[in-house]
Amino acid sequence: MATSSVHPPEAAEVLLVEDNPNDLELTLRALRQSKVAVSVRVVRDGAEALEHLYPTGRSINRQGKSALKLIILDLKLPKVDGIELLKKIKSNEQTSLIPVVVLTSSREERDVLQSYQCGASSYVVKPVEFERFIDTVSALGIYWTSLNQPPL
Amino acid sequence: MATSSVHPPEAAEVLLVEDNPNDLELTLRALRQSKVAVSVRVVRDGAEALEHLYPTGRSINRQGKSALKLIILDLKLPKVDGIELLKKIKSNEQTSLIPVVVLTSSREERDVLQSYQCGASSYVVKPVEFERFIDTVSALGIYWTSLNQPPL
Repeated sequence: MATSSVHPPEAAEVLLVEDNPNDLELTLRALRQSKVAVSVRVVRDGAEALEHLYPTGRSINRQGKSALKLIILDLKLPKVDGIELLKKIKSNEQTSLIPVVVLTSSREERDVLQSYQCGASSYVVKPVEFERFIDTVSALGIYWTSLNQPPL
Repeated sequence: MATSSVHPPEAAEVLLVEDNPNDLELTLRALRQSKVAVSVRVVRDGAEALEHLYPTGRSINRQGKSALKLIILDLKLPKVDGIELLKKIKSNEQTSLIPVVVLTSSREERDVLQSYQCGASSYVVKPVEFERFIDTVSALGIYWTSLNQPPL
Protein backbone atom coordinates (compact mmCIF):
# COMPACT_ATOMS: atom_id res chain seq x y z
CA MET A 1 0.00 0.00 0.00
CA ALA A 2 1.18 3.55 -0.70
CA THR A 3 -0.08 6.75 0.80
CA SER A 4 0.22 10.09 -0.94
CA SER A 5 -0.65 13.11 1.16
CA VAL A 6 -1.00 16.77 0.25
CA HIS A 7 -1.93 19.22 3.02
CA PRO A 8 -2.56 16.33 5.46
CA PRO A 9 -4.32 18.35 8.22
CA GLU A 10 -7.45 18.96 6.13
CA ALA A 11 -6.90 16.28 3.52
CA ALA A 12 -9.92 14.39 2.22
CA GLU A 13 -9.42 10.64 2.52
CA VAL A 14 -9.64 8.87 -0.80
CA LEU A 15 -9.39 5.14 -1.48
CA LEU A 16 -7.94 4.31 -4.89
CA VAL A 17 -8.49 0.74 -6.05
CA GLU A 18 -6.22 0.17 -9.05
CA ASP A 19 -4.08 -2.80 -10.09
CA ASN A 20 -2.46 -1.40 -13.25
CA PRO A 21 0.91 0.16 -12.26
CA ASN A 22 0.92 2.67 -15.13
CA ASP A 23 -2.65 3.85 -14.49
CA LEU A 24 -1.90 4.03 -10.77
CA GLU A 25 1.15 6.22 -11.36
CA LEU A 26 -0.81 8.50 -13.72
CA THR A 27 -3.77 8.76 -11.36
CA LEU A 28 -1.58 9.72 -8.40
CA ARG A 29 0.25 12.24 -10.57
CA ALA A 30 -3.05 13.76 -11.71
CA LEU A 31 -4.35 14.02 -8.14
CA ARG A 32 -1.12 15.73 -7.05
CA GLN A 33 -1.37 18.08 -10.04
CA SER A 34 -4.96 19.01 -9.15
CA LYS A 35 -3.57 20.52 -5.92
CA VAL A 36 -6.58 19.34 -3.94
CA ALA A 37 -5.99 18.38 -0.33
CA VAL A 38 -6.25 14.61 -0.50
CA SER A 39 -4.77 11.71 1.37
CA VAL A 40 -4.87 8.77 -1.02
CA ARG A 41 -4.76 5.18 0.17
CA VAL A 42 -3.91 2.81 -2.67
CA VAL A 43 -5.02 -0.81 -2.77
CA ARG A 44 -4.24 -3.06 -5.70
CA ASP A 45 -6.96 -5.69 -5.68
CA GLY A 46 -10.50 -6.22 -4.48
CA ALA A 47 -9.54 -8.38 -1.51
CA GLU A 48 -7.11 -5.72 -0.24
CA ALA A 49 -9.87 -3.12 -0.66
CA LEU A 50 -12.25 -5.21 1.45
CA GLU A 51 -9.62 -5.62 4.17
CA HIS A 52 -9.07 -1.85 4.18
CA LEU A 53 -12.79 -1.04 4.24
CA TYR A 54 -13.81 -3.69 6.76
CA PRO A 55 -10.73 -4.40 8.88
CA THR A 56 -11.09 -7.76 10.57
CA GLY A 57 -12.24 -7.48 14.15
CA ARG A 58 -12.18 -3.69 14.25
CA SER A 59 -14.87 -1.10 13.72
CA ILE A 60 -13.84 1.65 11.30
CA ASN A 61 -14.42 4.49 13.75
CA ARG A 62 -16.51 5.15 16.81
CA GLN A 63 -19.72 5.44 14.81
CA GLY A 64 -18.81 2.45 12.68
CA LYS A 65 -18.72 4.73 9.63
CA SER A 66 -15.82 5.19 7.27
CA ALA A 67 -14.20 8.63 7.07
CA LEU A 68 -13.58 8.13 3.35
CA LYS A 69 -14.77 10.97 1.15
CA LEU A 70 -14.41 9.09 -2.12
CA ILE A 71 -13.62 5.70 -3.59
CA ILE A 72 -12.06 5.60 -7.07
CA LEU A 73 -12.63 2.12 -8.40
CA ASP A 74 -11.16 0.29 -11.38
CA LEU A 75 -13.45 -2.49 -12.68
CA LYS A 76 -11.06 -5.19 -13.82
CA LEU A 77 -9.39 -6.25 -10.59
CA PRO A 78 -7.65 -9.37 -9.33
CA LYS A 79 -9.21 -11.54 -6.59
CA VAL A 80 -12.47 -9.62 -6.09
CA ASP A 81 -13.85 -7.95 -9.22
CA GLY A 82 -14.77 -4.24 -9.22
CA ILE A 83 -18.52 -4.84 -9.60
CA GLU A 84 -18.51 -7.35 -6.73
CA LEU A 85 -16.62 -4.86 -4.59
CA LEU A 86 -19.08 -2.11 -5.52
CA LYS A 87 -22.01 -4.32 -4.48
CA LYS A 88 -20.38 -4.97 -1.10
CA ILE A 89 -19.64 -1.27 -0.55
CA LYS A 90 -23.23 -0.29 -1.35
CA SER A 91 -24.84 -3.04 0.71
CA ASN A 92 -22.84 -2.37 3.89
CA GLU A 93 -24.24 0.50 5.95
CA GLN A 94 -20.73 1.53 7.11
CA THR A 95 -19.84 2.42 3.52
CA SER A 96 -23.07 2.59 1.49
CA LEU A 97 -23.16 6.40 1.22
CA ILE A 98 -19.51 6.95 0.22
CA PRO A 99 -19.44 8.22 -3.38
CA VAL A 100 -17.84 5.62 -5.67
CA VAL A 101 -16.47 6.81 -9.00
CA VAL A 102 -15.69 4.04 -11.46
CA LEU A 103 -12.50 4.90 -13.38
CA THR A 104 -11.90 2.32 -16.05
CA SER A 105 -10.69 1.73 -19.59
CA SER A 106 -13.94 -0.09 -20.42
CA ARG A 107 -16.44 1.67 -22.65
CA GLU A 108 -18.73 -1.38 -22.72
CA GLU A 109 -22.37 -0.47 -22.28
CA ARG A 110 -22.84 -3.47 -19.98
CA ASP A 111 -20.12 -2.24 -17.61
CA VAL A 112 -21.55 1.29 -17.56
CA LEU A 113 -25.09 0.09 -16.91
CA GLN A 114 -24.09 -2.45 -14.27
CA SER A 115 -21.98 0.13 -12.44
CA TYR A 116 -24.92 2.52 -12.12
CA GLN A 117 -27.31 -0.28 -11.25
CA CYS A 118 -24.97 -1.32 -8.43
CA GLY A 119 -24.83 2.21 -7.05
CA ALA A 120 -21.82 3.95 -8.62
CA SER A 121 -22.14 7.73 -8.37
CA SER A 122 -20.25 8.32 -11.58
CA TYR A 123 -18.47 6.43 -14.39
CA VAL A 124 -15.39 7.92 -16.04
CA VAL A 125 -13.55 6.30 -18.96
CA LYS A 126 -9.74 6.57 -18.73
CA PRO A 127 -8.52 8.55 -21.71
CA VAL A 128 -5.82 6.77 -23.71
CA GLU A 129 -3.81 9.92 -24.39
CA PHE A 130 -1.44 11.00 -21.57
CA GLU A 131 -2.39 14.69 -21.27
CA ARG A 132 -6.11 13.94 -21.39
CA PHE A 133 -5.72 11.23 -18.73
CA ILE A 134 -4.01 13.71 -16.41
CA ASP A 135 -6.57 16.47 -17.11
CA THR A 136 -9.55 14.14 -16.66
CA VAL A 137 -8.39 12.57 -13.39
CA SER A 138 -7.30 15.96 -12.11
CA ALA A 139 -10.79 17.36 -12.77
CA LEU A 140 -12.30 14.26 -11.15
CA GLY A 141 -10.20 14.86 -8.03
CA ILE A 142 -11.15 18.52 -7.85
CA TYR A 143 -14.86 17.82 -8.36
CA TRP A 144 -15.19 15.07 -5.75
CA THR A 145 -12.91 16.44 -3.04
CA SER A 146 -13.55 20.17 -3.20
CA LEU A 147 -16.89 20.77 -4.95
CA ASN A 148 -18.87 17.74 -3.82
CA GLN A 149 -20.17 17.73 -0.26
CA PRO A 150 -19.84 14.17 1.06
CA PRO A 151 -22.42 12.68 3.46
CA LEU A 152 -20.32 12.99 6.61
CA MET B 1 -40.00 26.93 -19.45
CA ALA B 2 -36.80 28.14 -21.09
CA THR B 3 -34.37 26.18 -23.22
CA SER B 4 -30.74 27.15 -23.60
CA SER B 5 -28.81 25.26 -26.28
CA VAL B 6 -25.15 25.28 -27.21
CA HIS B 7 -23.95 23.03 -30.07
CA PRO B 8 -27.42 21.42 -30.25
CA PRO B 9 -26.54 18.48 -32.56
CA GLU B 10 -24.48 16.68 -29.90
CA ALA B 11 -25.82 18.50 -26.88
CA ALA B 12 -26.31 16.54 -23.67
CA GLU B 13 -29.84 16.97 -22.33
CA VAL B 14 -29.89 18.41 -18.84
CA LEU B 15 -32.92 19.09 -16.66
CA LEU B 16 -32.45 22.02 -14.29
CA VAL B 17 -34.98 22.22 -11.44
CA GLU B 18 -34.62 25.67 -9.88
CA ASP B 19 -37.19 28.14 -8.59
CA ASN B 20 -34.93 31.02 -7.55
CA PRO B 21 -34.65 33.45 -10.51
CA ASN B 22 -31.21 34.73 -9.52
CA ASP B 23 -29.74 31.26 -9.01
CA LEU B 24 -31.36 30.15 -12.27
CA GLU B 25 -29.79 33.01 -14.18
CA LEU B 26 -26.37 32.35 -12.63
CA THR B 27 -26.57 28.61 -13.27
CA LEU B 28 -27.47 29.09 -16.94
CA ARG B 29 -24.67 31.63 -17.29
CA ALA B 30 -22.17 29.22 -15.70
CA LEU B 31 -23.25 26.36 -18.00
CA ARG B 32 -22.86 28.62 -21.03
CA GLN B 33 -19.45 29.72 -19.78
CA SER B 34 -18.30 26.12 -19.35
CA LYS B 35 -18.66 25.76 -23.15
CA VAL B 36 -19.95 22.22 -22.78
CA ALA B 37 -22.48 21.05 -25.34
CA VAL B 38 -25.66 21.05 -23.30
CA SER B 39 -29.32 21.55 -23.98
CA VAL B 40 -30.85 22.72 -20.71
CA ARG B 41 -34.53 22.37 -19.94
CA VAL B 42 -35.54 24.55 -17.02
CA VAL B 43 -38.45 23.75 -14.72
CA ARG B 44 -39.31 25.92 -11.77
CA ASP B 45 -41.09 23.62 -9.34
CA GLY B 46 -41.38 19.97 -8.46
CA ALA B 47 -44.75 19.48 -10.14
CA GLU B 48 -43.45 20.91 -13.42
CA ALA B 49 -40.43 18.59 -13.14
CA LEU B 50 -42.72 15.57 -12.71
CA GLU B 51 -44.79 16.59 -15.75
CA HIS B 52 -41.57 16.93 -17.79
CA LEU B 53 -40.14 13.60 -16.61
CA TYR B 54 -43.36 11.61 -16.84
CA PRO B 55 -45.52 13.34 -19.45
CA THR B 56 -49.15 12.35 -18.98
CA GLY B 57 -50.22 9.58 -21.31
CA ARG B 58 -46.95 9.50 -23.26
CA SER B 59 -43.90 7.28 -22.96
CA ILE B 60 -40.62 9.22 -22.83
CA ASN B 61 -39.07 7.45 -25.82
CA ARG B 62 -39.38 4.11 -27.55
CA GLN B 63 -37.62 2.23 -24.76
CA GLY B 64 -39.54 4.15 -22.13
CA LYS B 65 -36.23 5.61 -20.90
CA SER B 66 -35.40 9.27 -20.57
CA ALA B 67 -32.61 10.66 -22.77
CA LEU B 68 -31.56 13.00 -19.97
CA LYS B 69 -27.87 12.89 -19.11
CA LEU B 70 -28.18 14.85 -15.88
CA ILE B 71 -30.68 16.37 -13.48
CA ILE B 72 -29.55 19.39 -11.45
CA LEU B 73 -31.91 19.66 -8.51
CA ASP B 74 -32.52 22.43 -6.00
CA LEU B 75 -33.94 21.13 -2.71
CA LYS B 76 -36.29 23.87 -1.58
CA LEU B 77 -38.96 23.84 -4.27
CA PRO B 78 -42.60 24.90 -4.50
CA LYS B 79 -45.38 22.29 -4.88
CA VAL B 80 -43.28 19.11 -4.77
CA ASP B 81 -40.18 19.33 -2.56
CA GLY B 82 -36.72 18.39 -3.94
CA ILE B 83 -36.34 15.31 -1.74
CA GLU B 84 -39.80 14.03 -2.74
CA LEU B 85 -38.91 14.59 -6.38
CA LEU B 86 -35.59 12.77 -5.92
CA LYS B 87 -37.41 9.78 -4.38
CA LYS B 88 -39.78 9.61 -7.36
CA ILE B 89 -36.92 9.87 -9.87
CA LYS B 90 -34.98 7.07 -8.16
CA SER B 91 -37.98 4.77 -7.73
CA ASN B 92 -39.17 4.98 -11.35
CA GLU B 93 -37.28 2.67 -13.70
CA GLN B 94 -37.56 5.15 -16.58
CA THR B 95 -35.41 7.62 -14.65
CA SER B 96 -33.73 5.74 -11.78
CA LEU B 97 -30.24 5.65 -13.35
CA ILE B 98 -30.05 9.32 -14.42
CA PRO B 99 -27.38 11.06 -12.31
CA VAL B 100 -29.00 13.64 -10.02
CA VAL B 101 -26.78 16.39 -8.63
CA VAL B 102 -28.30 18.36 -5.76
CA LEU B 103 -27.35 22.04 -6.10
CA THR B 104 -28.57 23.92 -3.08
CA SER B 105 -27.78 26.68 -0.63
CA SER B 106 -28.39 24.30 2.28
CA ARG B 107 -25.36 23.10 4.22
CA GLU B 108 -27.55 21.25 6.72
CA GLU B 109 -26.22 17.81 7.54
CA ARG B 110 -29.76 16.40 7.43
CA ASP B 111 -30.26 17.61 3.84
CA VAL B 112 -26.89 16.21 2.73
CA LEU B 113 -27.53 12.83 4.35
CA GLN B 114 -31.11 12.55 3.11
CA SER B 115 -30.05 13.43 -0.45
CA TYR B 116 -27.49 10.62 -0.55
CA GLN B 117 -29.86 8.20 1.17
CA CYS B 118 -32.46 8.95 -1.52
CA GLY B 119 -29.98 8.28 -4.31
CA ALA B 120 -28.40 11.61 -5.26
CA SER B 121 -25.11 11.08 -7.09
CA SER B 122 -23.58 14.25 -5.74
CA TYR B 123 -24.36 17.21 -3.46
CA VAL B 124 -22.96 20.66 -4.25
CA VAL B 125 -23.48 23.72 -2.05
CA LYS B 126 -24.12 26.94 -4.00
CA PRO B 127 -21.30 29.37 -3.20
CA VAL B 128 -22.54 32.75 -2.02
CA GLU B 129 -19.89 34.74 -3.85
CA PHE B 130 -20.64 35.43 -7.55
CA GLU B 131 -17.34 34.32 -9.12
CA ARG B 132 -17.20 31.15 -7.06
CA PHE B 133 -20.82 30.31 -7.98
CA ILE B 134 -19.98 30.61 -11.66
CA ASP B 135 -16.74 28.60 -11.34
CA THR B 136 -18.40 25.86 -9.28
CA VAL B 137 -21.42 25.37 -11.54
CA SER B 138 -19.23 25.59 -14.61
CA ALA B 139 -17.00 22.79 -13.25
CA LEU B 140 -20.14 20.81 -12.35
CA GLY B 141 -21.39 21.13 -15.94
CA ILE B 142 -18.06 20.07 -17.42
CA TYR B 143 -17.71 17.09 -15.09
CA TRP B 144 -21.19 15.66 -15.63
CA THR B 145 -21.62 16.32 -19.34
CA SER B 146 -18.15 15.69 -20.72
CA LEU B 147 -16.18 13.57 -18.22
CA ASN B 148 -18.94 11.41 -16.77
CA GLN B 149 -20.25 8.56 -18.92
CA PRO B 150 -24.01 8.36 -18.38
CA PRO B 151 -25.85 5.02 -18.37
CA LEU B 152 -27.36 5.33 -21.86
